[in-house]
Amino acid sequence: MATPTAQIIRGGGLRALFTGNGALAPFRLLKSDLKGRPKLYHTDWHFNQLILASAVFVFFTNLLPGITFASDLYILTGKNYGTIEVVFSTGLCGIVFALFSGQPLTILGVTGPFCILSERIYALCHENFHIDFLPFMAWSCIHSAWMHWLLAIFNAHDWTMEYVTTFSTEIFSLLNSIIYFHKAIQELERSHANTSLASFLYSIIGCIGTFLVAVTLSTANSWAPLFHKYVRMGLSEYAAAISIIFFIGMPQIGELDSLDQQRLPVSTSFRPTSPERSHFIVEFWKLDVSWIFAAMIPGMIITTLFFFDVEVSTICATISRYNVRKPGGYAWDVVLLGLTTAMCGILGIPPANGLLPQAPLHSESLLHDEEVKDEDGSVKKITTVHEQRWSHLLHAIGILAFVSPPLMHVLGLTPTSVLAGLFLYMGEQSLTVNPILIRFFHILTPSSELPPLPSGIKGYRGIHMYTLLQIVVTAGIFAVTLTPAAPAFPVIIVLLVPIRLRIMNKWWNRETLKRMLLPPVFLFLKIINSALPYDTILPSKIPLSPAPNLI
Amino acid sequence: MATPTAQIIRGGGLRALFTGNGALAPFRLLKSDLKGRPKLYHTDWHFNQLILASAVFVFFTNLLPGITFASDLYILTGKNYGTIEVVFSTGLCGIVFALFSGQPLTILGVTGPFCILSERIYALCHENFHIDFLPFMAWSCIHSAWMHWLLAIFNAHDWTMEYVTTFSTEIFSLLNSIIYFHKAIQELERSHANTSLASFLYSIIGCIGTFLVAVTLSTANSWAPLFHKYVRMGLSEYAAAISIIFFIGMPQIGELDSLDQQRLPVSTSFRPTSPERSHFIVEFWKLDVSWIFAAMIPGMIITTLFFFDVEVSTICATISRYNVRKPGGYAWDVVLLGLTTAMCGILGIPPANGLLPQAPLHSESLLHDEEVKDEDGSVKKITTVHEQRWSHLLHAIGILAFVSPPLMHVLGLTPTSVLAGLFLYMGEQSLTVNPILIRFFHILTPSSELPPLPSGIKGYRGIHMYTLLQIVVTAGIFAVTLTPAAPAFPVIIVLLVPIRLRIMNKWWNRETLKRMLLPPVFLFLKIINSALPYDTILPSKIPLSPAPNLI
Repeated sequence: MATPTAQIIRGGGLRALFTGNGALAPFRLLKSDLKGRPKLYHTDWHFNQLILASAVFVFFTNLLPGITFASDLYILTGKNYGTIEVVFSTGLCGIVFALFSGQPLTILGVTGPFCILSERIYALCHENFHIDFLPFMAWSCIHSAWMHWLLAIFNAHDWTMEYVTTFSTEIFSLLNSIIYFHKAIQELERSHANTSLASFLYSIIGCIGTFLVAVTLSTANSWAPLFHKYVRMGLSEYAAAISIIFFIGMPQIGELDSLDQQRLPVSTSFRPTSPERSHFIVEFWKLDVSWIFAAMIPGMIITTLFFFDVEVSTICATISRYNVRKPGGYAWDVVLLGLTTAMCGILGIPPANGLLPQAPLHSESLLHDEEVKDEDGSVKKITTVHEQRWSHLLHAIGILAFVSPPLMHVLGLTPTSVLAGLFLYMGEQSLTVNPILIRFFHILTPSSELPPLPSGIKGYRGIHMYTLLQIVVTAGIFAVTLTPAAPAFPVIIVLLVPIRLRIMNKWWNRETLKRMLLPPVFLFLKIINSALPYDTILPSKIPLSPAPNLI
Repeated sequence: MATPTAQIIRGGGLRALFTGNGALAPFRLLKSDLKGRPKLYHTDWHFNQLILASAVFVFFTNLLPGITFASDLYILTGKNYGTIEVVFSTGLCGIVFALFSGQPLTILGVTGPFCILSERIYALCHENFHIDFLPFMAWSCIHSAWMHWLLAIFNAHDWTMEYVTTFSTEIFSLLNSIIYFHKAIQELERSHANTSLASFLYSIIGCIGTFLVAVTLSTANSWAPLFHKYVRMGLSEYAAAISIIFFIGMPQIGELDSLDQQRLPVSTSFRPTSPERSHFIVEFWKLDVSWIFAAMIPGMIITTLFFFDVEVSTICATISRYNVRKPGGYAWDVVLLGLTTAMCGILGIPPANGLLPQAPLHSESLLHDEEVKDEDGSVKKITTVHEQRWSHLLHAIGILAFVSPPLMHVLGLTPTSVLAGLFLYMGEQSLTVNPILIRFFHILTPSSELPPLPSGIKGYRGIHMYTLLQIVVTAGIFAVTLTPAAPAFPVIIVLLVPIRLRIMNKWWNRETLKRMLLPPVFLFLKIINSALPYDTILPSKIPLSPAPNLI
């Protein structure tokens, strides 16, 4: 599909742009989404043992990061968002998407960047604007809803994702890792400030212990020959869950029980975390009109972030290797995401959206061999996913169940040090698969010991400069998240796209860029397929798919 | 060389056994040792940068385990042995061997099994015999000296080592690992008993931290492409030293400085650790005559242990891969070891002997490429060791320097938690290269996922039973070390040899034994050449050298 600018240049005028197959022809994509998927809806409800296992796996990988963010949000949003809000949102949005989405493989949750965003918006409301946080956030989400709808109506999926490359997605991923590490440190700092030295020292043991046990177990797949391969798979898939359960249990033992450990703050009944709220509906209609308009700015930022996130996670969850055979629903899912975002805003809970790397991991856990008939009648085996809604629905129901007081109490046993360890684990998991890391290692290594470069690239100098630029940009954006301008950070990431388009061709030669700038799907190649050798994501070896708009 | 029994069976009678080339012909080996080496002595004194680097490396790998044992000996020998005694002995014996040994590659130090032995002898003296420990130990060492000399005179090297196989050496190595882990736990238990909860929790951080940093750095060689390869080599060779320095520094920082950390007990002047002693000479002549005779039993046990250790470490330090070209001096080195053992006994310090795995690591650090002329005049390149005495001498002088009060003070900064971490590290390093470990993993894995076996071996059942037998025997010996019968444990290990010879052929088929029972040199194959793949030490892939006496 041509981009709007390309179409204008090619001629045909503005009118053609908005009609028929025009890039901006209203409802074009949405109509095709609504034509294709509903007919197949009934086929999305088959069930088997693998689907159940996938639901259990996704339940843990979605719930655990969620409560980690909750412990942080509780402090940094003045108790407006807490554990119950995060769990409620993840469960509710998950059920809506399981039932009504176009593409049921993309699972939803409360993400790190959104937490940062809402914490910074809270700080602005509280310290600068002196207004209530939740009504302002509700309006931001309501504005975001119609912005989502506009993006869907004008086929944004077609003409945006072609410009997004690994340059931006790698930076986004690195930023996430840094934010995770920073949150772990903040969590330990709070323990240091609020508890005894012994308790603080135990927090360090709990944090590093949770991290290291999870990291060690996550490599279980490579332990052969040790244990049956299903045991190894189980250990590596439930690495974080096993580690967290162990370190929740440990401080109950012996003397450790006497320590003044900080734990995840939870509600004791089904009501919001904040003692000032008695019900979930936010009285958003009471906000001053000028602030209602001002909320369009955070609304736009949330839209930017959510659109970027849900698109990239859906792309990664449906890459060709998975042999997804039913049509997708990019435009429809953006409409639905606008709806759930507004709903969460009004309920005073943080909106959920497409989760990375959990969405592709969900597809991965549904892979199986299937026999299909070719056109000529011959039977062949292909690996494909169970494209259905049960795993999505069941895991979401499981998470929603945790808003009930008894299960909420279980979550409340979690020491915050364990959550700090989980932050480290999440940061490490996304950092180790980020090509920036290995290219950073290359900077620290003499060129003579590096793998040979493909012809056309003169030396490692250009690649090193490219890597350093990414690191500097990431450091810059992270610095911004620490200032009052923090809420603007998703916009900066998106602005990287046009800046790259204008400047990069002048600074680097075409051959180098062809190896470095790749469609966003390459970012998660390593996560998705752990069998890939370490250096497949090296510039010299990456398989190139033609992407003419990238350079 | 035929064994005494083989020679008798072959005929010739007792007389032939003791004359000419007879197995027990007195001084036969000793004479050949004294003929060969002294002529080449002057060639042992060349020097270059690699030799210096080797000395520095060996200095750390010898000193660090030594002081770890010292902290343990201090408690468990009632302050009779402590840091200064261990350092003094290591330095002194090292200098003697550097100057006078037949084979200068075998470095000496105070070993784990000897520590266990002396701690248990102390317990017997203190609790059961009610006599002074040091005079009794002095006599044990003096008796051990003439026993060493008898072994040398009757050419024991020839007719003992042919019977020792990996069955015993693997058990010996596993026992070492278990003893190390047990000592780490004891060290932490002492911290728990004697310090505050905060200090105990910090001890755990220091212990696990030292262990993990050392283990991580020790894998630096496989980090490519990251850093220059010399940087990687440096990090992996000095892994323990870097880790220990870091964790000595850490508790000096901030609040941690206020903790009541236990540190390595050291002397403040050049005098023995025990406040009851003013000089190093033990007044051994004052011991009751009956106890002088009784000391022959521990003397025999020490001899057994030392002979076994020095033989195996010399074999490992001079394997064919190193292309050692000067003659060895097995018999002469046993004479010298008897001498240093008696000397240490009289000085009231623990005697040093051949160190594993440090001795082969010493050879490894001296490897370089050299051009040699073939018989036909053509020049070819071989990899060989710098067979010289400087690296041995310099590292020993460096260690001896630490008996001086200022350097002793530096050692005294070491928290005992760091030493506990070093114990874990040493245990891990010898456990991971022990074939028992990987065969134990095989027991936990279904046979269908294990590598195929060579023809002649029906299934994994026999191998599993062999592995379990080794584990049970090791557990049994370890249990003995916890009882009053502990000092007998080296004898049990040696007794395994005849037991194996009588029983094993009945329990296992010949083909299996041929793969499992190997000359002792195979035990350290993995340590010495880290480039060997993980499974080279598997029974199915091991290169077999013919060893007719083994089965």
